[in-house]
Amino acid sequence: MTQDPPSTKQRLLAAATEEFAAHGIAGARVDRIAELAGVNKERIYGYFGSKQKLFDQVVARALDELAEAVPLQPGDDPAEYVGRVYDFHRANPALVRLSLWEGLHYRDGALPGEARRSTHYERKVAALAETFGAEASPRVGACLLSLIGLAAWPVAVPQMARLLVGAGPDIDLRAHVVEFARQAVAGSLPNA
Amino acid sequence: MTQDPPSTKQRLLAAATEEFAAHGIAGARVDRIAELAGVNKERIYGYFGSKQKLFDQVVARALDELAEAVPLQPGDDPAEYVGRVYDFHRANPALVRLSLWEGLHYRDGALPGEARRSTHYERKVAALAETFGAEASPRVGACLLSLIGLAAWPVAVPQMARLLVGAGPDIDLRAHVVEFARQAVAGSLPNA
Repeated sequence: MTQDPPSTKQRLLAAATEEFAAHGIAGARVDRIAELAGVNKERIYGYFGSKQKLFDQVVARALDELAEAVPLQPGDDPAEYVGRVYDFHRANPALVRLSLWEGLHYRDGALPGEARRSTHYERKVAALAETFGAEASPRVGACLLSLIGLAAWPVAVPQMARLLVGAGPDIDLRAHVVEFARQAVAGSLPNA
Repeated sequence: MTQDPPSTKQRLLAAATEEFAAHGIAGARVDRIAELAGVNKERIYGYFGSKQKLFDQVVARALDELAEAVPLQPGDDPAEYVGRVYDFHRANPALVRLSLWEGLHYRDGALPGEARRSTHYERKVAALAETFGAEASPRVGACLLSLIGLAAWPVAVPQMARLLVGAGPDIDLRAHVVEFARQAVAGSLPNA
């Protein structure tokens, strides 16, 4: 008897990330994922159950990667955090695309991985609240939502970014986004 | 001989807007659009040429509606503009969804209706620049990009907005977005 090496599941998740980021939940094809990963299609169902569940695993994994690559700790400068989130999304546009596909698919209905996702955001809101010298609250959550939006929007609508800012080196869009975020949160910071 | 009433094309565009906003370029089905509009499928090709061209017409029309419903004039308060854009997208989420589908499809490649789109943005950048007491520039374009992003992001990722801010009336997300934008642009305004 052979046992699957751990890398099979990882290979499937990597292939699925690429496929879902490019085509979304409805457009992704499980046989393309299987082919890309060099794995039998039946194995995907064995591991993950369904295309939908595979998508949820892919999003959870991408969020874990973001949380690890771009941690938000109490006391971190929110504007610098926006810059690091911007860098992450520029280098890995898959997560923004997955989030957009997810929003287009689930809208504001419950997510399958709801509990896990809530925990992910609660941690970040708690860290940002501590930075603000405030309690975690929907207001702080709204602030985090806008900070993430500032970082992710140019990746979410690259066509709009290109037309409004240009494709050339005329402007450092990262510096703009960081400065914009810095101004925006200045009123919220305890020492501002 | 009968002539098509103008409403046939309008009916098709309305049906196509609904279909494309829900399913994107790849996922939309021309026969569903035809059925929804109560028009023969062949007529769609007669009017618009292809599904892709129909999508481009739909986006152009939605942007025209936005420009008419939410004009940006020199001297307009940028933060209040963000509030009005927010209201528009909340009431009509189709345009945000169309923009996301467009970005997922074309990424930062050239758009079919590129010239028309450029003009749309140039007008807005010129108005915002005048408000700032500055020349139109990629910097002002970046500022407009971020302002639009602040207004549109909660509609773009409703699942994230719900988890971070909650679905209840605990917080007025519109007021937050407007205030956030006000702080952000404060440094850019001539009289700030």
